[in-house]
Amino acid sequence: MTHQTMPTGSASSETVRIDLADRSYDILIGENLLGQGNTFLHLPKASAALIVTNTTVAPLYELALKQALSAHYPVIHSVHLPDGESYKDWPTLNLIFDALLGLACDRKTVLFALGGGVVGDMTGFAAASFMRGVPFVQVPTTLLAQVDSSVGGKTAINHPMGKNMIGAFYQPQRVICDLSVLQTLPAREISAGLAEIIKYGPIADMAFFDWIEANIDALLACDAKVLAHAVQRSCEIKASVVGMDERESGLRAILNFGHTFGHAIEAGLGYGKWLHGEAVGCGMVMAAHLSHDMGLIDASFVSRLTLLIQRAGLPVQAPMLSKLNSQHDNIDQYLTHMLHDKKSVAGDIQFVLLEGPGRARVSATPEALVRAVIERCCA
Amino acid sequence: MTHQTMPTGSASSETVRIDLADRSYDILIGENLLGQGNTFLHLPKASAALIVTNTTVAPLYELALKQALSAHYPVIHSVHLPDGESYKDWPTLNLIFDALLGLACDRKTVLFALGGGVVGDMTGFAAASFMRGVPFVQVPTTLLAQVDSSVGGKTAINHPMGKNMIGAFYQPQRVICDLSVLQTLPAREISAGLAEIIKYGPIADMAFFDWIEANIDALLACDAKVLAHAVQRSCEIKASVVGMDERESGLRAILNFGHTFGHAIEAGLGYGKWLHGEAVGCGMVMAAHLSHDMGLIDASFVSRLTLLIQRAGLPVQAPMLSKLNSQHDNIDQYLTHMLHDKKSVAGDIQFVLLEGPGRARVSATPEALVRAVIERCCA
Repeated sequence: MTHQTMPTGSASSETVRIDLADRSYDILIGENLLGQGNTFLHLPKASAALIVTNTTVAPLYELALKQALSAHYPVIHSVHLPDGESYKDWPTLNLIFDALLGLACDRKTVLFALGGGVVGDMTGFAAASFMRGVPFVQVPTTLLAQVDSSVGGKTAINHPMGKNMIGAFYQPQRVICDLSVLQTLPAREISAGLAEIIKYGPIADMAFFDWIEANIDALLACDAKVLAHAVQRSCEIKASVVGMDERESGLRAILNFGHTFGHAIEAGLGYGKWLHGEAVGCGMVMAAHLSHDMGLIDASFVSRLTLLIQRAGLPVQAPMLSKLNSQHDNIDQYLTHMLHDKKSVAGDIQFVLLEGPGRARVSATPEALVRAVIERCCA
Repeated sequence: MTHQTMPTGSASSETVRIDLADRSYDILIGENLLGQGNTFLHLPKASAALIVTNTTVAPLYELALKQALSAHYPVIHSVHLPDGESYKDWPTLNLIFDALLGLACDRKTVLFALGGGVVGDMTGFAAASFMRGVPFVQVPTTLLAQVDSSVGGKTAINHPMGKNMIGAFYQPQRVICDLSVLQTLPAREISAGLAEIIKYGPIADMAFFDWIEANIDALLACDAKVLAHAVQRSCEIKASVVGMDERESGLRAILNFGHTFGHAIEAGLGYGKWLHGEAVGCGMVMAAHLSHDMGLIDASFVSRLTLLIQRAGLPVQAPMLSKLNSQHDNIDQYLTHMLHDKKSVAGDIQFVLLEGPGRARVSATPEALVRAVIERCCA
């Protein structure tokens, strides 16, 4: 992973490189990138491109992206998906295949994912599996997608029994983090993105954590300069981890800090009720409690992390998943959903635990401790 | 690609190696393999295995396979798919995901594809995408699957607009070609398998073609010794081609000789009406005509190939795809389906043509010649 400054038209952008041998690629980070033709120089050639976006993002940025791509592709098609995590499923994925085949797209067609994490994950999996693989480019339009989901090649759709259960490791050709689009995001989406930014602190970089604490108000106010640093540092950390363990045979799992509890919240409440970032924010609080109960971190760090997550506008109290309003049933609901987590092996739920501020590892934990944490963190 | 003889219990088996760096694996070829525990030595360990099979094959071989696997896996689950190419679709694929998640299978679970090409292709794609990839083993029970589809890592499901449009390159851990199971195959399935065996002659090995001509009656009679040689030589040729071009960036496409026309027949008649091997047999006749019309091969070789395909019990006259019974519309139907072929680029249909007996290449061809071939070959 390296980075450098490169000029792109009037503005300047930073480049973070993901080093993965013949699957290496650049993350471009800067203002006003998606509407500039030279953002898309030197991508694979094709007779057509397909922009995959959703009904919310299309009216905002599709025209600008189309114009920028028109210098590179003779024909630019688009398909609009319904918006939301609840549509991250096979019928919606199939809309992309229907478009590709209905438009007689070939195996050189380049897909452009214009949207948040759901659009990126679905477009990536469609690209991975259409004709057994076509190239794609990530153009993330949410803070969460820019700092996490668009980087690293994890693509997937949900199954009713678990999040991201069906997918592929499939790297994009490039990631375009256009910081200008963040200015129009609703406050709730900024907070959701901050969850994944905050995550990089406790698992890998406490200096970054200190910086986030000092700049949380400016981040919430979408200050361009602090957002730029937050996106760049997040991408650098993610690039470094992914470069060492692309297919999550070990280290990469630490990026799932807060996600085991978080996925249970998302699946348990029904996809889309809480944003992914909200569930991860609350999940990090729960994982911090578990790390403390395992004797790994001080109570003071649990409090410090909880406070920052709360200041970021994220929930820190876990929701009841029980329809019976029973705490016993609620705990069972959490455990059932977590047993389906991809990190589970041979019936043991695996958690990302903090070994100390700035260090994480994956570990099975005694069920009694997990039950106690769920009970303590739920309303 | 290498091969050697190795003892497996009472019988002996041949091994053909597919050399693909860290994705290399063995094809075991021999009698009574699937019921022997040592056939499955040294596969990835897991707390559970899942046998994916269909309602036709399950009563014949599932118990034997389960018993052989019981020495290696504590729990062996199974899922039974409906039988036939018309079920090679998403709803049927989802039965595998439902089973995996309903049984709380984890990312180490090993899948065993017990069946023909449809079961193998679907199990392979399920393995490629469940939790972004779990190991799988091919146990092909048709001649066609043993000599072609189970080898080389092409996995896919069909889309209403095209065959094998959604899938992945994903290599199995091992392929088990148990020759004993061929003895119970219906004659129509033997003929379908012979189509893919015959294919290897004109594209790569005329000595093998001569041998098939000399042994066609013994092959149709399921003579164990000649079948063994046919399976082994087919796997050797396929292993050699796949080893040079795993992801079909060039050479590997020659393995699709007859498949451009063949896929149009399958999609045009409706999946399952003709067996894949039947469509490929007829498609090879059409592709040979096209190669002749392009000035590449003599009429005498077209006749010789057509005769062998006919002797193998395969159709050599192409079906009408027009519901209007109009030859003009029929040709348009063929062209529309072929335009969706994965080899098509920028609106040009690509065909595998014979450059001479034993040599093939991929090439676009003038539409007028293609139209003439369709008209000539259709009833």
